[in-house]
Amino acid sequence: MNFELYSFWRTSATFRVRVALNLKGLQAVEHDVDLVAGQQRSADFLAINPMGAIPALIDKRPGQSPAPLTQSTAILEFLEEAYPAPALLPVDLHERARVRSLCAMLTADTHPLMPPRVKKYLTSVSGFDEAAWRAWQTHWLTTGLTAFEQRISTDRASADYCHGSQVGMADICLASVVMIARVFKLDLPAMPTVDAVMQRCDQLPAFARAAPHLQQGAPKL
Amino acid sequence: MNFELYSFWRTSATFRVRVALNLKGLQAVEHDVDLVAGQQRSADFLAINPMGAIPALIDKRPGQSPAPLTQSTAILEFLEEAYPAPALLPVDLHERARVRSLCAMLTADTHPLMPPRVKKYLTSVSGFDEAAWRAWQTHWLTTGLTAFEQRISTDRASADYCHGSQVGMADICLASVVMIARVFKLDLPAMPTVDAVMQRCDQLPAFARAAPHLQQGAPKL
Repeated sequence: MNFELYSFWRTSATFRVRVALNLKGLQAVEHDVDLVAGQQRSADFLAINPMGAIPALIDKRPGQSPAPLTQSTAILEFLEEAYPAPALLPVDLHERARVRSLCAMLTADTHPLMPPRVKKYLTSVSGFDEAAWRAWQTHWLTTGLTAFEQRISTDRASADYCHGSQVGMADICLASVVMIARVFKLDLPAMPTVDAVMQRCDQLPAFARAAPHLQQGAPKL
Repeated sequence: MNFELYSFWRTSATFRVRVALNLKGLQAVEHDVDLVAGQQRSADFLAINPMGAIPALIDKRPGQSPAPLTQSTAILEFLEEAYPAPALLPVDLHERARVRSLCAMLTADTHPLMPPRVKKYLTSVSGFDEAAWRAWQTHWLTTGLTAFEQRISTDRASADYCHGSQVGMADICLASVVMIARVFKLDLPAMPTVDAVMQRCDQLPAFARAAPHLQQGAPKL
């Protein structure tokens, strides 16, 4: 086993890493860090990742640094560089930039607005109740995914998947954000192109096996 | 002139691209898109970038697609791939992952919480006044930059710059976020390592020439 992955069952960023490992045929021992119980601030976990954040990927291959690889987008790029096949990015530089740009619409423009620490601020400082929080989540998921839908539905570079006919990094990022709406049962407007891509992803074992409710620590359905 | 850059003077994400172009010795014709006046939603600009977002970099080199390159992190990676020297990322795969992880702490964990559209939601929907907005900005800049300070001050991989003794992608991202505190005159706690890196960056012409108040459309100081 070449990798250890510190994760939490429903964390969107961990999901990205899990899918990328699966797509590349890599196996990782996964360790559950219960964010609800605050385990990310435990001495045990801080000894592994002093930043107290997941996902944290440990490279156990001989001769590699024990320092954790952190931040999902950096880990995806690392896996792509360390294990180029199957590729998650196209070869052409403009196409690579397009895929990374699609990823950033989700991992930078959308997802960072809704982690637990943002909920904590809005509920404890700004007086958000549960309905206001769900409206916030719904607003930013709708904003981000509607823009994404517009982009992939109007650009012929998108086909079966977000870029062309091969699954890749943008699909991973898309699924990781759609997952948030699923986990929290949020109603989003119709997005036919996004839905079609997601249906294809859902059928791939690499995505299906990464589903939140199948992971360690997930509540029984 | 090989590139055209659609930009707004004080936009942190545009600043990143401007510095990377400067560091690589590339020149771009810059076009001001006045976000305050809503020019990003004008028909003229939507014809260039249908997503209505800046930065948008047009590659004018012969034979290249006229589609805009968008999202600052994707553009930085593109420039690094298209113009490898001087390098903005190290060679070693773990080190590359470290730099990208440092970047993501800023471009994903921190900056996305404070663009104009987030201010608009919080002031128009959530009742934030100017003080509450400034407290929000200050809180997330403090959270992000304090974590960043902890990381670069405790890891020997950081030296004169965020990674080693050569300026790179993490320094660009750091400067782009510190810039927000400067533009809006926000008080942040002391961060000696961040400050030392920033002092070095400020002295580099590539950063100095990219400063917001020197750009088209900036108010006179």
